Amino acid sequence: MNAVIDLLKSHRSIRKFTDQPISDELLQTLVEAGQAAATSNHVQAYAIVRVVDRANREQLVTLSGGQPYVASCAEFLVFCADMKRAFRAAERAGAEVVTGMTEQLLVATTDAALIAQNLVVAAESEGLGICYIGGLRNNPAEVSELLKLPAHVYPVFGVCLGYPAQNPEVKPRLPLASILKQDYYDDSQDEAQIAEFDAAMEAYYQQRTGNKKITNWSEQLRPMFSQKLRPHMKDFLFSKGFEMK
Amino acid sequence: MNAVIDLLKSHRSIRKFTDQPISDELLQTLVEAGQAAATSNHVQAYAIVRVVDRANREQLVTLSGGQPYVASCAEFLVFCADMKRAFRAAERAGAEVVTGMTEQLLVATTDAALIAQNLVVAAESEGLGICYIGGLRNNPAEVSELLKLPAHVYPVFGVCLGYPAQNPEVKPRLPLASILKQDYYDDSQDEAQIAEFDAAMEAYYQQRTGNKKITNWSEQLRPMFSQKLRPHMKDFLFSKGFEMK
Repeated sequence: MNAVIDLLKSHRSIRKFTDQPISDELLQTLVEAGQAAATSNHVQAYAIVRVVDRANREQLVTLSGGQPYVASCAEFLVFCADMKRAFRAAERAGAEVVTGMTEQLLVATTDAALIAQNLVVAAESEGLGICYIGGLRNNPAEVSELLKLPAHVYPVFGVCLGYPAQNPEVKPRLPLASILKQDYYDDSQDEAQIAEFDAAMEAYYQQRTGNKKITNWSEQLRPMFSQKLRPHMKDFLFSKGFEMK
Repeated sequence: MNAVIDLLKSHRSIRKFTDQPISDELLQTLVEAGQAAATSNHVQAYAIVRVVDRANREQLVTLSGGQPYVASCAEFLVFCADMKRAFRAAERAGAEVVTGMTEQLLVATTDAALIAQNLVVAAESEGLGICYIGGLRNNPAEVSELLKLPAHVYPVFGVCLGYPAQNPEVKPRLPLASILKQDYYDDSQDEAQIAEFDAAMEAYYQQRTGNKKITNWSEQLRPMFSQKLRPHMKDFLFSKGFEMK
Protein backbone atom coordinates (compact mmCIF):
# COMPACT_ATOMS: atom_id res chain seq x y z
CA MET A 1 0.00 0.00 0.00
CA ASN A 2 1.26 3.49 -0.80
CA ALA A 3 0.01 7.08 -0.82
CA VAL A 4 -1.41 6.84 -4.35
CA ILE A 5 -3.48 3.78 -3.45
CA ASP A 6 -4.62 5.47 -0.24
CA LEU A 7 -5.74 8.43 -2.35
CA LEU A 8 -7.65 6.21 -4.79
CA LYS A 9 -9.39 4.36 -1.96
CA SER A 10 -10.47 7.61 -0.29
CA HIS A 11 -12.64 8.71 -3.23
CA ARG A 12 -16.19 9.85 -2.63
CA SER A 13 -18.36 12.20 -4.66
CA ILE A 14 -18.33 15.82 -3.50
CA ARG A 15 -21.46 17.90 -4.11
CA LYS A 16 -20.73 20.99 -1.97
CA PHE A 17 -17.83 23.24 -2.86
CA THR A 18 -16.18 26.36 -1.46
CA ASP A 19 -15.98 29.53 -3.56
CA GLN A 20 -12.26 29.01 -4.16
CA PRO A 21 -11.53 28.99 -7.89
CA ILE A 22 -9.24 26.53 -9.67
CA SER A 23 -6.35 28.33 -11.34
CA ASP A 24 -6.06 28.09 -15.12
CA GLU A 25 -2.59 26.64 -14.63
CA LEU A 26 -3.88 23.84 -12.39
CA LEU A 27 -6.79 23.09 -14.73
CA GLN A 28 -4.36 22.79 -17.63
CA THR A 29 -2.15 20.45 -15.59
CA LEU A 30 -5.16 18.27 -14.76
CA VAL A 31 -6.19 17.99 -18.41
CA GLU A 32 -2.64 17.11 -19.43
CA ALA A 33 -2.56 14.41 -16.74
CA GLY A 34 -5.86 13.13 -18.14
CA GLN A 35 -4.44 13.03 -21.65
CA ALA A 36 -1.61 10.79 -20.45
CA ALA A 37 -4.07 7.91 -19.96
CA ALA A 38 -4.02 5.05 -22.44
CA THR A 39 -6.09 5.56 -25.59
CA SER A 40 -7.22 2.95 -28.09
CA ASN A 41 -4.72 2.86 -30.98
CA HIS A 42 -3.65 6.42 -30.12
CA VAL A 43 -6.98 7.72 -31.46
CA GLN A 44 -7.62 10.07 -28.48
CA ALA A 45 -11.32 9.96 -29.28
CA TYR A 46 -12.42 12.60 -26.80
CA ALA A 47 -12.95 16.31 -26.28
CA ILE A 48 -13.63 18.26 -23.10
CA VAL A 49 -15.89 21.31 -23.04
CA ARG A 50 -15.16 23.56 -20.07
CA VAL A 51 -18.36 25.44 -19.31
CA VAL A 52 -17.57 28.91 -17.95
CA ASP A 53 -20.65 30.83 -19.10
CA ARG A 54 -22.97 31.23 -16.08
CA ALA A 55 -26.22 31.04 -18.01
CA ASN A 56 -25.10 27.82 -19.68
CA ARG A 57 -24.15 26.39 -16.30
CA GLU A 58 -27.68 27.08 -15.03
CA GLN A 59 -29.11 25.48 -18.16
CA LEU A 60 -27.00 22.38 -17.50
CA VAL A 61 -28.34 22.17 -13.92
CA THR A 62 -31.81 21.79 -15.41
CA LEU A 63 -30.78 19.53 -18.29
CA SER A 64 -29.03 17.14 -15.89
CA GLY A 65 -32.14 16.72 -13.77
CA GLY A 66 -31.72 19.54 -11.24
CA GLN A 67 -28.25 18.99 -9.81
CA PRO A 68 -27.31 22.43 -8.37
CA TYR A 69 -23.60 21.59 -7.93
CA VAL A 70 -23.28 21.69 -11.73
CA ALA A 71 -23.54 25.47 -11.28
CA SER A 72 -21.88 25.87 -7.87
CA CYS A 73 -18.69 23.90 -8.55
CA ALA A 74 -15.55 25.83 -9.53
CA GLU A 75 -15.26 24.09 -12.91
CA PHE A 76 -17.70 21.96 -14.88
CA LEU A 77 -16.24 19.82 -17.64
CA VAL A 78 -18.30 17.94 -20.22
CA PHE A 79 -16.47 14.84 -21.43
CA CYS A 80 -17.38 14.02 -25.00
CA ALA A 81 -16.75 10.93 -27.08
CA ASP A 82 -15.24 12.43 -30.22
CA MET A 83 -14.66 10.52 -33.45
CA LYS A 84 -14.85 13.66 -35.58
CA ARG A 85 -11.19 14.66 -35.22
CA ALA A 86 -9.87 11.18 -35.94
CA PHE A 87 -12.14 10.79 -38.97
CA ARG A 88 -10.86 14.13 -40.30
CA ALA A 89 -7.25 13.09 -39.75
CA ALA A 90 -7.80 9.79 -41.58
CA GLU A 91 -9.45 11.69 -44.44
CA ARG A 92 -6.46 14.01 -44.67
CA ALA A 93 -4.33 10.90 -45.12
CA GLY A 94 -6.57 9.75 -47.97
CA ALA A 95 -9.10 7.48 -46.25
CA GLU A 96 -12.67 7.09 -47.40
CA VAL A 97 -13.90 6.95 -43.84
CA VAL A 98 -16.51 4.39 -42.75
CA THR A 99 -18.53 5.97 -39.93
CA GLY A 100 -21.30 4.77 -37.62
CA MET A 101 -19.77 1.47 -36.50
CA THR A 102 -20.76 0.12 -33.07
CA GLU A 103 -17.07 -0.43 -32.35
CA GLN A 104 -16.39 3.26 -32.85
CA LEU A 105 -18.98 4.07 -30.19
CA LEU A 106 -17.22 1.70 -27.78
CA VAL A 107 -13.76 3.10 -28.55
CA ALA A 108 -14.81 6.71 -28.09
CA THR A 109 -16.90 6.07 -24.96
CA THR A 110 -14.04 4.12 -23.38
CA ASP A 111 -11.46 6.74 -24.34
CA ALA A 112 -13.59 9.49 -22.76
CA ALA A 113 -13.89 7.48 -19.54
CA LEU A 114 -10.14 6.82 -19.36
CA ILE A 115 -9.12 10.46 -19.75
CA ALA A 116 -11.80 11.50 -17.24
CA GLN A 117 -10.69 9.06 -14.57
CA ASN A 118 -7.04 10.09 -14.90
CA LEU A 119 -8.07 13.75 -14.67
CA VAL A 120 -10.18 12.95 -11.60
CA VAL A 121 -7.29 11.20 -9.85
CA ALA A 122 -5.03 14.17 -10.62
CA ALA A 123 -7.67 16.55 -9.24
CA GLU A 124 -8.11 14.58 -6.04
CA SER A 125 -4.33 14.47 -5.59
CA GLU A 126 -4.45 18.29 -5.48
CA GLY A 127 -7.15 18.31 -2.79
CA LEU A 128 -10.07 18.90 -5.13
CA GLY A 129 -13.39 17.09 -4.89
CA ILE A 130 -15.29 15.78 -7.89
CA CYS A 131 -18.67 14.45 -8.92
CA TYR A 132 -19.50 12.66 -12.17
CA ILE A 133 -22.74 13.84 -13.78
CA GLY A 134 -24.26 11.06 -15.89
CA GLY A 135 -27.49 13.08 -15.74
CA LEU A 136 -26.34 14.95 -18.87
CA ARG A 137 -27.68 11.93 -20.73
CA ASN A 138 -31.19 12.85 -19.55
CA ASN A 139 -31.24 15.49 -22.28
CA PRO A 140 -28.27 14.79 -24.53
CA ALA A 141 -29.70 16.52 -27.61
CA GLU A 142 -30.26 19.77 -25.68
CA VAL A 143 -26.80 19.53 -24.09
CA SER A 144 -25.29 18.99 -27.53
CA GLU A 145 -27.09 22.00 -28.93
CA LEU A 146 -26.00 24.20 -26.01
CA LEU A 147 -22.35 23.20 -26.46
CA LYS A 148 -22.60 23.19 -30.28
CA LEU A 149 -21.36 19.61 -30.51
CA PRO A 150 -20.95 18.56 -34.15
CA ALA A 151 -21.66 15.16 -35.72
CA HIS A 152 -19.57 12.25 -34.39
CA VAL A 153 -19.27 13.90 -30.97
CA TYR A 154 -21.58 13.12 -28.03
CA PRO A 155 -21.59 14.10 -24.32
CA VAL A 156 -20.86 11.01 -22.21
CA PHE A 157 -20.94 12.67 -18.79
CA GLY A 158 -19.91 15.81 -16.95
CA VAL A 159 -17.53 16.23 -14.02
CA CYS A 160 -17.88 18.87 -11.29
CA LEU A 161 -14.57 20.03 -9.81
CA GLY A 162 -13.92 22.26 -6.81
CA TYR A 163 -12.50 22.53 -3.33
CA PRO A 164 -14.69 20.44 -0.99
CA ALA A 165 -17.02 22.08 1.53
CA GLN A 166 -18.18 18.71 2.89
CA ASN A 167 -16.53 15.49 4.01
CA PRO A 168 -18.83 12.56 3.31
CA GLU A 169 -17.99 8.94 4.07
CA VAL A 170 -16.50 6.61 1.47
CA LYS A 171 -19.34 4.46 0.07
CA PRO A 172 -18.92 0.69 0.35
CA ARG A 173 -18.22 -1.43 -2.70
CA LEU A 174 -19.24 -5.00 -3.62
CA PRO A 175 -17.25 -7.80 -2.00
CA LEU A 176 -14.07 -8.47 -3.93
CA ALA A 177 -15.14 -12.05 -4.69
CA SER A 178 -18.22 -10.70 -6.41
CA ILE A 179 -16.29 -8.83 -9.08
CA LEU A 180 -12.97 -10.70 -9.33
CA LYS A 181 -13.30 -14.14 -10.97
CA GLN A 182 -10.55 -16.64 -11.69
CA ASP A 183 -10.32 -18.14 -15.20
CA TYR A 184 -14.06 -18.12 -15.81
CA TYR A 185 -17.20 -16.27 -14.78
CA ASP A 186 -18.39 -18.20 -11.77
CA ASP A 187 -21.75 -16.81 -10.66
CA SER A 188 -22.63 -19.62 -8.25
CA GLN A 189 -22.19 -17.31 -5.25
CA ASP A 190 -24.14 -14.38 -6.73
CA GLU A 191 -27.17 -14.66 -4.47
CA ALA A 192 -25.12 -14.87 -1.27
CA GLN A 193 -22.85 -12.01 -2.37
CA ILE A 194 -25.77 -9.74 -3.27
CA ALA A 195 -27.42 -10.52 0.08
CA GLU A 196 -24.15 -9.76 1.88
CA PHE A 197 -23.81 -6.44 0.06
CA ASP A 198 -27.46 -5.54 0.65
CA ALA A 199 -26.85 -5.98 4.38
CA ALA A 200 -23.67 -3.88 4.20
CA MET A 201 -25.45 -1.08 2.33
CA GLU A 202 -28.44 -1.17 4.69
CA ALA A 203 -26.06 -0.62 7.61
CA TYR A 204 -24.24 2.14 5.70
CA TYR A 205 -27.43 4.05 4.82
CA GLN A 206 -28.53 4.01 8.47
CA GLN A 207 -25.19 5.00 9.92
CA ARG A 208 -23.88 7.65 7.55
CA THR A 209 -23.77 11.29 8.57
CA GLY A 210 -26.18 12.83 6.09
CA ASN A 211 -29.39 11.65 4.37
CA LYS A 212 -29.94 8.53 6.49
CA LYS A 213 -32.50 6.10 5.04
CA ILE A 214 -33.70 2.52 5.30
CA THR A 215 -32.91 0.78 2.02
CA ASN A 216 -30.28 -1.47 0.47
CA TRP A 217 -28.41 -1.93 -2.80
CA SER A 218 -31.03 -4.05 -4.57
CA GLU A 219 -33.83 -1.68 -3.53
CA GLN A 220 -31.85 1.28 -4.88
CA LEU A 221 -31.41 -0.44 -8.25
CA ARG A 222 -35.05 -1.54 -8.60
CA PRO A 223 -36.52 1.70 -10.05
CA MET A 224 -33.54 2.17 -12.38
CA PHE A 225 -34.09 -1.15 -14.14
CA SER A 226 -37.89 -1.35 -13.88
CA GLN A 227 -38.13 1.19 -16.68
CA LYS A 228 -36.73 1.75 -20.15
CA LEU A 229 -33.56 3.51 -19.04
CA ARG A 230 -33.06 6.73 -21.05
CA PRO A 231 -34.94 5.32 -24.06
CA HIS A 232 -33.98 8.34 -26.18
CA MET A 233 -30.28 7.36 -26.26
CA LYS A 234 -30.45 5.15 -29.36
CA ASP A 235 -32.11 7.80 -31.54
CA PHE A 236 -29.92 10.52 -30.07
CA LEU A 237 -26.70 8.63 -30.85
CA PHE A 238 -27.99 7.86 -34.33
CA SER A 239 -28.67 11.57 -34.88
CA LYS A 240 -25.04 12.33 -33.99
CA GLY A 241 -23.69 9.79 -36.48
CA PHE A 242 -23.14 6.98 -33.97
CA GLU A 243 -25.44 4.63 -35.85
CA MET A 244 -24.37 1.40 -34.14
CA LYS A 245 -23.91 -0.49 -37.41
CA MET B 1 2.38 19.53 -9.80
CA ASN B 2 2.85 16.64 -7.38
CA ALA B 3 4.10 13.04 -7.38
CA VAL B 4 0.70 11.59 -8.39
CA ILE B 5 0.47 13.86 -11.41
CA ASP B 6 4.09 13.04 -12.31
CA LEU B 7 3.14 9.36 -12.13
CA LEU B 8 0.09 9.84 -14.38
CA LYS B 9 2.10 11.79 -16.93
CA SER B 10 4.80 9.10 -17.08
CA HIS B 11 2.43 6.41 -18.42
CA ARG B 12 3.41 4.36 -21.44
CA SER B 13 2.35 0.88 -22.46
CA ILE B 14 4.68 -1.90 -21.38
CA ARG B 15 4.85 -5.02 -23.56
CA LYS B 16 7.93 -6.77 -22.11
CA PHE B 17 7.88 -8.03 -18.56
CA THR B 18 10.27 -9.73 -16.16
CA ASP B 19 9.39 -13.12 -14.69
CA GLN B 20 8.65 -11.58 -11.28
CA PRO B 21 5.14 -12.54 -10.18
CA ILE B 22 2.61 -10.17 -8.62
CA SER B 23 1.65 -11.29 -5.13
CA ASP B 24 -1.97 -12.21 -4.48
CA GLU B 25 -2.03 -9.56 -1.78
CA LEU B 26 -0.92 -6.82 -4.16
CA LEU B 27 -3.35 -7.94 -6.85
CA GLN B 28 -6.17 -7.77 -4.33
CA THR B 29 -5.08 -4.28 -3.27
CA LEU B 30 -5.07 -3.14 -6.91
CA VAL B 31 -8.57 -4.45 -7.54
CA GLU B 32 -9.86 -2.77 -4.37
CA ALA B 33 -8.26 0.50 -5.49
CA GLY B 34 -10.01 0.00 -8.83
CA GLN B 35 -13.35 -0.55 -7.12
CA ALA B 36 -13.02 2.79 -5.34
CA ALA B 37 -13.55 4.61 -8.66
CA ALA B 38 -16.86 6.34 -9.25
CA THR B 39 -19.62 4.13 -10.66
CA SER B 40 -22.88 5.22 -12.28
CA ASN B 41 -25.64 5.21 -9.62
CA HIS B 42 -23.58 2.75 -7.55
CA VAL B 43 -24.38 0.01 -10.08
CA GLN B 44 -20.76 -1.30 -10.27
CA ALA B 45 -21.54 -2.76 -13.69
CA TYR B 46 -18.29 -4.65 -14.13
CA ALA B 47 -16.51 -7.92 -13.49
CA ILE B 48 -12.86 -8.83 -13.86
CA VAL B 49 -11.73 -12.27 -14.99
CA ARG B 50 -8.16 -13.01 -13.91
CA VAL B 51 -6.78 -15.53 -16.39
CA VAL B 52 -4.31 -17.86 -14.67
CA ASP B 53 -4.69 -21.00 -16.80
CA ARG B 54 -1.72 -21.17 -19.19
CA ALA B 55 -3.60 -22.77 -22.08
CA ASN B 56 -6.28 -20.09 -21.87
CA ARG B 57 -3.62 -17.40 -21.86
CA GLU B 58 -2.17 -18.82 -25.08
CA GLN B 59 -5.65 -18.94 -26.58
CA LEU B 60 -6.12 -15.26 -25.71
CA VAL B 61 -2.84 -14.38 -27.45
CA THR B 62 -4.36 -15.74 -30.65
CA LEU B 63 -7.84 -14.32 -30.08
CA SER B 64 -6.43 -10.84 -29.50
CA GLY B 65 -4.58 -10.86 -32.80
CA GLY B 66 -1.24 -12.37 -31.78
CA GLN B 67 -0.09 -10.21 -28.90
CA PRO B 68 2.46 -12.43 -27.06
CA TYR B 69 2.57 -10.26 -23.90
CA VAL B 70 -0.96 -11.48 -23.13
CA ALA B 71 0.78 -14.74 -22.18
CA SER B 72 4.10 -13.40 -20.91
CA CYS B 73 2.77 -10.79 -18.47
CA ALA B 74 2.50 -11.70 -14.78
CA GLU B 75 -1.26 -11.17 -14.68
CA PHE B 76 -3.85 -10.81 -17.44
CA LEU B 77 -7.18 -9.32 -16.44
CA VAL B 78 -10.24 -9.23 -18.69
CA PHE B 79 -12.47 -6.27 -17.84
CA CYS B 80 -16.10 -7.04 -18.54
CA ALA B 81 -19.12 -4.78 -18.71
CA ASP B 82 -21.54 -6.61 -16.43
CA MET B 83 -25.24 -5.77 -16.15
CA LYS B 84 -26.15 -9.29 -15.03
CA ARG B 85 -25.47 -8.79 -11.32
CA ALA B 86 -27.35 -5.49 -11.14
CA PHE B 87 -30.33 -6.95 -13.03
CA ARG B 88 -30.43 -9.86 -10.59
CA ALA B 89 -30.28 -7.51 -7.62
CA ALA B 90 -33.14 -5.40 -8.99
CA GLU B 91 -35.16 -8.57 -9.57
CA ARG B 92 -34.57 -9.65 -5.98
CA ALA B 93 -36.09 -6.32 -4.95
CA GLY B 94 -39.15 -7.03 -7.10
CA ALA B 95 -38.32 -5.36 -10.41
CA GLU B 96 -39.51 -6.64 -13.75
CA VAL B 97 -36.23 -5.78 -15.38
CA VAL B 98 -36.09 -4.08 -18.79
CA THR B 99 -32.89 -5.25 -20.50
CA GLY B 100 -31.13 -4.40 -23.74
CA MET B 101 -31.24 -0.61 -23.54
CA THR B 102 -28.49 1.35 -25.31
CA GLU B 103 -28.03 3.37 -22.13
CA GLN B 104 -27.20 0.19 -20.20
CA LEU B 105 -24.41 -0.56 -22.68
CA LEU B 106 -22.99 2.93 -22.10
CA VAL B 107 -23.25 2.66 -18.31
CA ALA B 108 -21.54 -0.73 -18.16
CA THR B 109 -18.83 0.13 -20.69
CA THR B 110 -18.03 3.37 -18.85
CA ASP B 111 -18.03 1.64 -15.46
CA ALA B 112 -15.60 -1.00 -16.73
CA ALA B 113 -13.28 1.71 -18.05
CA LEU B 114 -13.34 3.67 -14.78
CA ILE B 115 -12.45 0.68 -12.58
CA ALA B 116 -9.73 -0.32 -15.04
CA GLN B 117 -8.07 3.07 -15.13
CA ASN B 118 -8.04 3.33 -11.33
CA LEU B 119 -6.53 -0.16 -11.12
CA VAL B 120 -3.93 0.80 -13.72
CA VAL B 121 -2.90 3.92 -11.80
CA ALA B 122 -2.61 1.85 -8.61
CA ALA B 123 -0.48 -0.71 -10.47
CA GLU B 124 1.84 1.93 -11.91
CA SER B 125 2.22 3.48 -8.45
CA GLU B 126 3.64 0.12 -7.34
CA GLY B 127 6.18 0.05 -10.17
CA LEU B 128 4.20 -2.26 -12.44
CA GLY B 129 3.81 -1.74 -16.17
CA ILE B 130 0.54 -2.25 -18.02
CA CYS B 131 -0.88 -2.59 -21.53
CA TYR B 132 -4.54 -2.36 -22.49
CA ILE B 133 -5.63 -5.06 -24.95
CA GLY B 134 -8.57 -3.84 -27.02
CA GLY B 135 -7.72 -6.68 -29.41
CA LEU B 136 -10.01 -8.96 -27.36
CA ARG B 137 -12.80 -7.38 -29.38
CA ASN B 138 -11.34 -9.01 -32.51
CA ASN B 139 -12.98 -12.25 -31.36
CA PRO B 140 -15.35 -11.34 -28.55
CA ALA B 141 -17.62 -14.37 -28.95
CA GLU B 142 -14.69 -16.79 -28.64
CA VAL B 143 -13.30 -14.84 -25.66
CA SER B 144 -16.72 -14.97 -24.02
CA GLU B 145 -16.97 -18.70 -24.57
CA LEU B 146 -13.48 -19.30 -23.17
CA LEU B 147 -14.26 -17.31 -20.02
CA LYS B 148 -17.84 -18.63 -19.80
CA LEU B 149 -19.30 -15.14 -19.78
CA PRO B 150 -23.09 -15.25 -19.32
CA ALA B 151 -25.74 -13.04 -20.92
CA HIS B 152 -25.49 -9.33 -20.06
CA VAL B 153 -21.74 -9.56 -19.64
CA TYR B 154 -19.25 -8.70 -22.41
CA PRO B 155 -15.43 -8.35 -22.54
CA VAL B 156 -14.53 -4.68 -23.12
CA PHE B 157 -10.73 -5.05 -23.04
CA GLY B 158 -7.93 -6.85 -21.27
CA VAL B 159 -5.04 -5.43 -19.26
CA CYS B 160 -1.56 -6.98 -19.03
CA LEU B 161 0.21 -6.36 -15.73
CA GLY B 162 3.81 -7.11 -14.74
CA TYR B 163 7.17 -5.70 -13.73
CA PRO B 164 8.64 -3.86 -16.76
CA ALA B 165 11.58 -5.27 -18.71
CA GLN B 166 11.69 -2.28 -21.05
CA ASN B 167 11.62 1.48 -20.69
CA PRO B 168 9.94 3.03 -23.73
CA GLU B 169 9.39 6.74 -24.23
CA VAL B 170 6.15 8.45 -23.29
CA LYS B 171 4.09 8.89 -26.49
CA PRO B 172 3.03 12.45 -27.36
CA ARG B 173 -0.58 13.56 -27.03
CA LEU B 174 -2.67 16.02 -29.06
CA PRO B 175 -2.13 19.72 -28.30
CA LEU B 176 -4.20 20.77 -25.30
CA ALA B 177 -6.16 23.29 -27.38
CA SER B 178 -7.29 20.47 -29.62
CA ILE B 179 -9.15 18.62 -26.89
CA LEU B 180 -10.05 21.36 -24.37
CA LYS B 181 -12.77 23.72 -25.60
CA GLN B 182 -14.32 26.64 -23.76
CA ASP B 183 -18.13 26.89 -23.62
CA TYR B 184 -18.69 25.37 -27.03
CA TYR B 185 -17.08 22.98 -29.49
CA ASP B 186 -14.92 25.26 -31.61
CA ASP B 187 -13.38 23.23 -34.44
CA SER B 188 -12.10 26.19 -36.47
CA GLN B 189 -8.48 25.27 -35.65
CA ASP B 190 -8.85 21.53 -36.36
CA GLU B 191 -6.81 21.48 -39.56
CA ALA B 192 -3.90 23.42 -38.08
CA GLN B 193 -3.93 21.34 -34.89
CA ILE B 194 -3.97 18.03 -36.77
CA ALA B 195 -1.11 19.25 -38.97
CA GLU B 196 0.83 20.31 -35.87
CA PHE B 197 0.29 16.92 -34.26
CA ASP B 198 1.17 15.04 -37.45
CA ALA B 199 4.51 16.86 -37.46
CA ALA B 200 5.08 16.07 -33.77
CA MET B 201 4.30 12.38 -34.30
CA GLU B 202 6.47 12.20 -37.42
CA ALA B 203 9.40 13.50 -35.34
CA TYR B 204 8.57 11.08 -32.51
CA TYR B 205 8.43 8.00 -34.77
CA GLN B 206 11.83 8.87 -36.26
CA GLN B 207 13.54 9.63 -32.97
CA ARG B 208 12.25 6.97 -30.61
CA THR B 209 14.46 4.15 -29.42
CA GLY B 210 12.68 1.14 -30.91
CA ASN B 211 10.67 0.50 -34.10
CA LYS B 212 11.58 3.74 -35.89
CA LYS B 213 9.37 4.52 -38.90
CA ILE B 214 8.35 7.33 -41.22
CA THR B 215 4.69 8.04 -40.66
CA ASN B 216 2.43 10.44 -38.74
CA TRP B 217 -0.80 10.41 -36.75
CA SER B 218 -3.19 10.77 -39.68
CA GLU B 219 -1.37 8.06 -41.64
CA GLN B 220 -1.61 5.71 -38.67
CA LEU B 221 -5.38 6.27 -38.42
CA ARG B 222 -6.07 5.86 -42.14
CA PRO B 223 -6.32 2.03 -42.30
CA MET B 224 -8.35 1.88 -39.08
CA PHE B 225 -11.15 4.04 -40.46
CA SER B 226 -10.96 2.97 -44.12
CA GLN B 227 -12.70 -0.27 -43.19
CA LYS B 228 -15.76 -1.41 -41.27
CA LEU B 229 -14.13 -1.48 -37.86
CA ARG B 230 -14.88 -4.79 -36.10
CA PRO B 231 -18.18 -5.19 -37.96
CA HIS B 232 -19.13 -8.21 -35.83
CA MET B 233 -19.56 -6.09 -32.67
CA LYS B 234 -23.23 -5.23 -33.18
CA ASP B 235 -24.34 -8.84 -33.61
CA PHE B 236 -22.03 -9.98 -30.84
CA LEU B 237 -23.42 -7.46 -28.35
CA PHE B 238 -26.97 -8.37 -29.40
CA SER B 239 -26.17 -12.03 -28.75
CA LYS B 240 -25.08 -11.16 -25.19
CA GLY B 241 -28.30 -9.27 -24.46
CA PHE B 242 -26.93 -5.79 -25.18
CA GLU B 243 -29.51 -5.14 -27.88
CA MET B 244 -29.04 -1.38 -28.14
CA LYS B 245 -32.77 -0.64 -27.95
